[in-house]
Amino acid sequence: MTIDDLKKDFEVVRLQLQLECGGNGRSFFDPKARGNQWTVGAVASSEWTGVRLADVLNAVGLKDSAVYTAHYGADTHLSGDPKKPPISRGVPIEKALDPNNLIAFEQNGAPIHPMNGAPLRLVIPGWPGSCSHKWLQRIRIRDQVHDDPKMTGKAYRVPDYPVAPGEKIPKDAFKIIESMPVKSLITYPKSSIEIPAAEPVLQVRGHAWAGDNQVTAVDLSIDFGATWIKTDLRAPSNPYAWQHFAAEIKFPMQGYYEVWARATDDHGQMQPFAIAWNPKGYLNNSMHRVVVRVA
Amino acid sequence: MTIDDLKKDFEVVRLQLQLECGGNGRSFFDPKARGNQWTVGAVASSEWTGVRLADVLNAVGLKDSAVYTAHYGADTHLSGDPKKPPISRGVPIEKALDPNNLIAFEQNGAPIHPMNGAPLRLVIPGWPGSCSHKWLQRIRIRDQVHDDPKMTGKAYRVPDYPVAPGEKIPKDAFKIIESMPVKSLITYPKSSIEIPAAEPVLQVRGHAWAGDNQVTAVDLSIDFGATWIKTDLRAPSNPYAWQHFAAEIKFPMQGYYEVWARATDDHGQMQPFAIAWNPKGYLNNSMHRVVVRVA
Repeated sequence: MTIDDLKKDFEVVRLQLQLECGGNGRSFFDPKARGNQWTVGAVASSEWTGVRLADVLNAVGLKDSAVYTAHYGADTHLSGDPKKPPISRGVPIEKALDPNNLIAFEQNGAPIHPMNGAPLRLVIPGWPGSCSHKWLQRIRIRDQVHDDPKMTGKAYRVPDYPVAPGEKIPKDAFKIIESMPVKSLITYPKSSIEIPAAEPVLQVRGHAWAGDNQVTAVDLSIDFGATWIKTDLRAPSNPYAWQHFAAEIKFPMQGYYEVWARATDDHGQMQPFAIAWNPKGYLNNSMHRVVVRVA
Repeated sequence: MTIDDLKKDFEVVRLQLQLECGGNGRSFFDPKARGNQWTVGAVASSEWTGVRLADVLNAVGLKDSAVYTAHYGADTHLSGDPKKPPISRGVPIEKALDPNNLIAFEQNGAPIHPMNGAPLRLVIPGWPGSCSHKWLQRIRIRDQVHDDPKMTGKAYRVPDYPVAPGEKIPKDAFKIIESMPVKSLITYPKSSIEIPAAEPVLQVRGHAWAGDNQVTAVDLSIDFGATWIKTDLRAPSNPYAWQHFAAEIKFPMQGYYEVWARATDDHGQMQPFAIAWNPKGYLNNSMHRVVVRVA
């Protein structure tokens, strides 16, 4: 099936959708977690153009036995070894049928870049980025939870109870990550900016998101959390787009400041101040902090 | 003047008053700060019996030029060297005249222990403990801010603007610590307690205080600050007594938990999650955390 076939048979939609790597923030774990040592940047919100995954699944027809999707693409195993299975992940049928998931062929109004999954990719926002398969070739419908290697063991899974930093966890005590947690990122200023004491005012801004939930508040602190400043938080342009926040901060005097950002979602969950450790370094939604010097 | 003279000439009062070392929590600073490496325990709230400092000062008569007190005791310099001046500190006249300050001769209903300042000591609650001179012999009234060595330089002083960890600060940029900041301590359970998963319930309790202010709330978190649990907070038995808090915590499943306690005062100041660094390691009111294992 070509992109033209998809365009002919299904409604084409354009949505701003937010994708985040499950391991975003991994480098801040202690003890260290193996994997890409992401700091804060493994997240983006693009305008994706495509057809709804739900429309395609419904057109194909789902049996009552459908439980989970399984996604297959043109990529090889990370090692390049053709004998090893390439990554294949999936989501529960209920999530797959959410109208905000796309089979996308354009990103920000242009054909998808090969690095980003051309010609076709899944965009399943709010869940770990690995669910949004690039170079998509096939979707299989399974009558059980998908069980390829990247769905099992410790892959994209966290302990199903809170564990101590570095603790050994039984193999059967891991659960699949679903919705990503509430989080925010200060995009201006970048850390270590210096502003003059004569005019100690800064327009701080950034983005916030909360997986399947919505962000209801972003607050900033410039005194290590002793007091909090409300920001102007915009509604998302559509569900699963990240949300913009901004606030004008007036620093009371010269000195060294950290600006902390803390988002809260519509389920009352706030970003934490320290990391609940897990062995693969997933779900780090601790607060983003930038240094501002008023000199 | 003997204790009997004091009792005869002035009203004897008994108050619960909270004293905390300005360097309580110093050991958690990074870079390290010199001085006694206090963890969390350099604080207490005792019942003190004595006469009001204000009554004595008013009976003596204060001139309009009175600005600051200067306290002198029977102790020597810490080094034992009789040529070096022993510690002498003081407080502004307005603070000295607060009716909650005592010249005390009993602690918890018994004569003061020699280690705690017998026969007479000052109790000036809510300010650094060093203002509450032990083995008190003399109070001098000064027409300027008291300027003995332990009032100047970096002693019981913090930078008058926020500084980066480890930063060099000009000598003239330090200010005298006055009221201590809002803080709380979990006194039960002690850290690393283990409770059975069959009955994962714990009565968590502790104390909170806020210098010259009053504590209006203590909240607990068992999920690294994502959500907060209100505690029952009792009013102080009198001004400057610490306040008791308690809450029944039900842990949702087995695992490793940290119980965090966060007090808020009537000026809207909350305990921070990280330390605003200063070179002598004063005023560390970051949140107290205890580990609970549900097994």
